[in-house]
Amino acid sequence: MRLYTVGPLLTDLYELTMAAAYHANGRFNEATFSTFIRSSGKRNFYVAAGLEDILDELEDFRFSKRDIEYLERKEVFPKDFLRYLKALRFTGTVRAMPEGTIFFPDEPVLEITAPVIEAQIIETLILNTIGFQTLIATKAARCVHAAADRPLIDFSLRRTQGHYAGIKVARSTYMAGFAGTSNVLAGKIYDIPISGTMAHSFVMTFESEFEAFKAYADTFPDNTVLLIDTYDTIFGARNAVKIAREMKKKGKQLIGVRLDSGDMAALSKTVRKILDDAGFPGVKIYASSGFDENKISEVLSKGAAIDAFGVGTKMGVSADAPYSDIVYKLVRFNDRNVRKLSPGKTTLAGKKQVFRKTAPDGRYAKDTIGLRDEAFDDAYPLLEKAMANGRRLQSSPTLEQLQGRFKKNFLLLDDRYKSFDETNTYPVTISPRLKALQK
Amino acid sequence: MRLYTVGPLLTDLYELTMAAAYHANGRFNEATFSTFIRSSGKRNFYVAAGLEDILDELEDFRFSKRDIEYLERKEVFPKDFLRYLKALRFTGTVRAMPEGTIFFPDEPVLEITAPVIEAQIIETLILNTIGFQTLIATKAARCVHAAADRPLIDFSLRRTQGHYAGIKVARSTYMAGFAGTSNVLAGKIYDIPISGTMAHSFVMTFESEFEAFKAYADTFPDNTVLLIDTYDTIFGARNAVKIAREMKKKGKQLIGVRLDSGDMAALSKTVRKILDDAGFPGVKIYASSGFDENKISEVLSKGAAIDAFGVGTKMGVSADAPYSDIVYKLVRFNDRNVRKLSPGKTTLAGKKQVFRKTAPDGRYAKDTIGLRDEAFDDAYPLLEKAMANGRRLQSSPTLEQLQGRFKKNFLLLDDRYKSFDETNTYPVTISPRLKALQK
Repeated sequence: MRLYTVGPLLTDLYELTMAAAYHANGRFNEATFSTFIRSSGKRNFYVAAGLEDILDELEDFRFSKRDIEYLERKEVFPKDFLRYLKALRFTGTVRAMPEGTIFFPDEPVLEITAPVIEAQIIETLILNTIGFQTLIATKAARCVHAAADRPLIDFSLRRTQGHYAGIKVARSTYMAGFAGTSNVLAGKIYDIPISGTMAHSFVMTFESEFEAFKAYADTFPDNTVLLIDTYDTIFGARNAVKIAREMKKKGKQLIGVRLDSGDMAALSKTVRKILDDAGFPGVKIYASSGFDENKISEVLSKGAAIDAFGVGTKMGVSADAPYSDIVYKLVRFNDRNVRKLSPGKTTLAGKKQVFRKTAPDGRYAKDTIGLRDEAFDDAYPLLEKAMANGRRLQSSPTLEQLQGRFKKNFLLLDDRYKSFDETNTYPVTISPRLKALQK
Repeated sequence: MRLYTVGPLLTDLYELTMAAAYHANGRFNEATFSTFIRSSGKRNFYVAAGLEDILDELEDFRFSKRDIEYLERKEVFPKDFLRYLKALRFTGTVRAMPEGTIFFPDEPVLEITAPVIEAQIIETLILNTIGFQTLIATKAARCVHAAADRPLIDFSLRRTQGHYAGIKVARSTYMAGFAGTSNVLAGKIYDIPISGTMAHSFVMTFESEFEAFKAYADTFPDNTVLLIDTYDTIFGARNAVKIAREMKKKGKQLIGVRLDSGDMAALSKTVRKILDDAGFPGVKIYASSGFDENKISEVLSKGAAIDAFGVGTKMGVSADAPYSDIVYKLVRFNDRNVRKLSPGKTTLAGKKQVFRKTAPDGRYAKDTIGLRDEAFDDAYPLLEKAMANGRRLQSSPTLEQLQGRFKKNFLLLDDRYKSFDETNTYPVTISPRLKALQK
C-alpha cells in the first residue's frame, strides 16, 4: 500500500533551471547517473532500501496543473519549457540493487539512464529516498546483529524527524529483521505487527501502581506487559508477581514486564530472580530507553536477562550517523563517459555494475565495481533492471519477502564486517577495465 | 496551506491500549500533560516550532472507518471501545508558546488539558511534531547567528530524513530567519522564496565549462549564478569573468558564482580578487558544501569573502544533535498533581506557566517556571491559550509573521546565549510555589 506519491516538485530548484537550460539549448540526450554512498568511516556495510518508493514516484511522475501554475508565477521559466514540463513523463531505465541487498561504501546502489532532463529532475527524490531508508535499514541491521536473535521492536515514532520518517523507519526496520513496531499507522500501511502496552502516565493516573496493573490486566487478559519502573523497579516487579498470580487463578498468563530506566543489566537480573522465585519463569522481560546497537551489546555482555528490546530514538534518527554522504553523479552523457574532478569529490566515469564473489561456504568474499557490460565467471551482478521505459518490470515484493531476502543476505555477511569496529572493511576493488576508462 | 493531516493512527500502540483500559475502567477524567525538552548540554536555547501542525491535526482529529476496521482486525480491543473511538473528537485545551518563541531546557513549551483518553492518544503526535520542528528551527537560528546578516538558503532536501522532513525543514528554517530554500515543493506549499541555479552535472554535459556557462546565461539572462568548481575553481572564476563580460555587452549582469569544494576562506578571497580586478565587484560569491553554524563561523573568522551560504545536510538533520530529549508528561489527573520518580527521569507535578523577566533595555533577563495561576509584576507569561474545546482560538499566522516574531525575539536574546559555548546557560528558576507543590 502506498502512503501517497509526492510528485516531481519534490526537487531542488536548480534541477528545474538546469532542465530549462537543457531544453532551451536542445539537449535531450541520454544521460546515466550513478548513486552511491561515499565512505564515511562510520559504516562497514549498508542495507539497500527505498527502491519501492522510487518506482512508485517514477511511475506517477507528472507535473499537475497547479504545479505548472506555481512555476509560472515564479516568472523564471520560459513558457515553452513549462509547456514541455506539462507533458513530461519518466521514460527511463532504473537499475538497482533490490531492497534488502547488503552493499558497501562507493558501490553504485542504483543507476538511472534516461533523457537528461528526466534524469536530472529526479536527483533529489533518489537521494532523499534511498539515502534515508538505507540509513535506517542499516542502523536496524546493526541492532539486530547486536541483539543476537532477541526480538526488537521499533519504538522510535515520537522522536523521528517528522511522522513520515517514522513510517519509513517502521518499514525499514521490519525489512532489516525487527519483529514489529509501536507505530500504528505504519502497521496499517505496511501490515507490520504492532506492539505496545502502557506508559508511566497510565500508572500515575491510578491511586497505586497495583491498581493500575490490575485495571490493565482486566482489560487485556491475554496481552499484558506491565511497565514496572514508574516509582521503583523492584517494588514494581513484586506488584507484577501479584498480578501474575491473580491472572493465573483465572487461567491467564502475564506476558511480561518492561524496564525503562536504571541499570538495565543489574535490574533485569534481579527482576528475573523475583519472577523465577515466584514461579513465573515464563514471564518475559522487555527493556527500552536509549537502546541502540552499542547499548544492546553492552547490557548483553554484562549478562542482562532481557528477552526483547524496544529500540527508539537513537535508531530512529540513526543518531551516530544521521545522514550518509550519498551522491547521484553523472557518469555518462550522450555516449561520452564523464567525471567530476572537484577536490575531495571526484567520481568514476561510466555505466557500472557491482559483481560479488562468494566463498565456497556461500559467504560474501569480495566485490568488484566494474563496467556494466563486464562479466565474471566467479561473481554475480547485484544491480538488476527494475524499470524500463518508465514502467516497473516486476510487481512489488511484499515486506515479508523483503525481510526474508535481507535475513538470507545478512547470514552471508561475515560477522567481522558486522562488528562495530569500522576498520574491518570488506574487500571492494575496481575492475581493470573501469580503471582504464578513467584515463 | 496544509500539506495534509495524518489522523489519530499516528500514535504508538500503547496510547490506544491505555485508552482502552481507561475506557474499560470508566476513567474519563481530565488530565494535563506538559511538554518540555530535558537539558542535553547541546543547546542553550530553543526556538518553538510545530504548533500550527498540531492545531491542524487536533481540529481534524477523527478515526476513519478504515482506521477502525484496521484496529478491529488486530483482535485486541474491546468492541465497545472501538465504537467509542469512532465518535471520538479532540475537545481539549492547548496552551503553548507561539511558534518563533525562544525558550530554554526544562521549560514547558506546550500543555494539553483534556479528558485523559484524548490527551493520551495525541502524545506521539505532539512529541514528534514539536520535537522535530523545534530542533530544526533551533539549528537554523544558530546558523543565522553565525552568518551575521549574510543570507542563508536551505539546501538540505536531498539529505533530510524523508521528504516530509525536508518540507518542514524549509518551513522551520525560513521561520528562523533563512532567506529561502532550494525545495520547490516547500516553496509552493508555504510560499517560501525558492533559489538555485546549476549543479556539476550540468557543466559536465557540455564539451567545456565555458560552453555550459554560456548556455545557462543565455537561458537565464536575469538570474545566473555559475558553479565554478567542477574542474578547477580558479579556472572556473576566469570563465565566469568571460561570461560576465559577454552579459555586460547585452546590458545584463551576472548575479554570482558558487563555490562548492576546497578551502572556502582562501578560495573565496582569490575569486573575489579575480572578479574585482576584472571590474565585477557586484558579482556575489555564494558558498555551499558542509556548512553549519560551526563551519560558517570558522570561514568568516578567516575573512572569507562569502556573500551568502547554502546550508544543507548538517543543518537539515541537525547533525550534531539529531534529536532532542523532548517529553510529554502527566502532571495533573482528576484534580491531583502527579509526578514520576523513575531514576534520571523525574518530573515536576502541576499545571505550569513560564514567566519571562526582561532587562530595562528589553533583553531577556530571567525565566521562572511557575504554576499556571501564578502572576509576577515584573514578568510576562509565555504560554498562550491556542485552542479551547478542540477549536483554534485564532486564525493561523502567516510564515512571514512568524519569521518577524522570531527575528524580534532573537534580538532580545543576549549574544552570550547564542554562542556555541553551551556552558553559558540562561537563568531559569522554579517558583517557590511550584517547588512547594513537589513535596
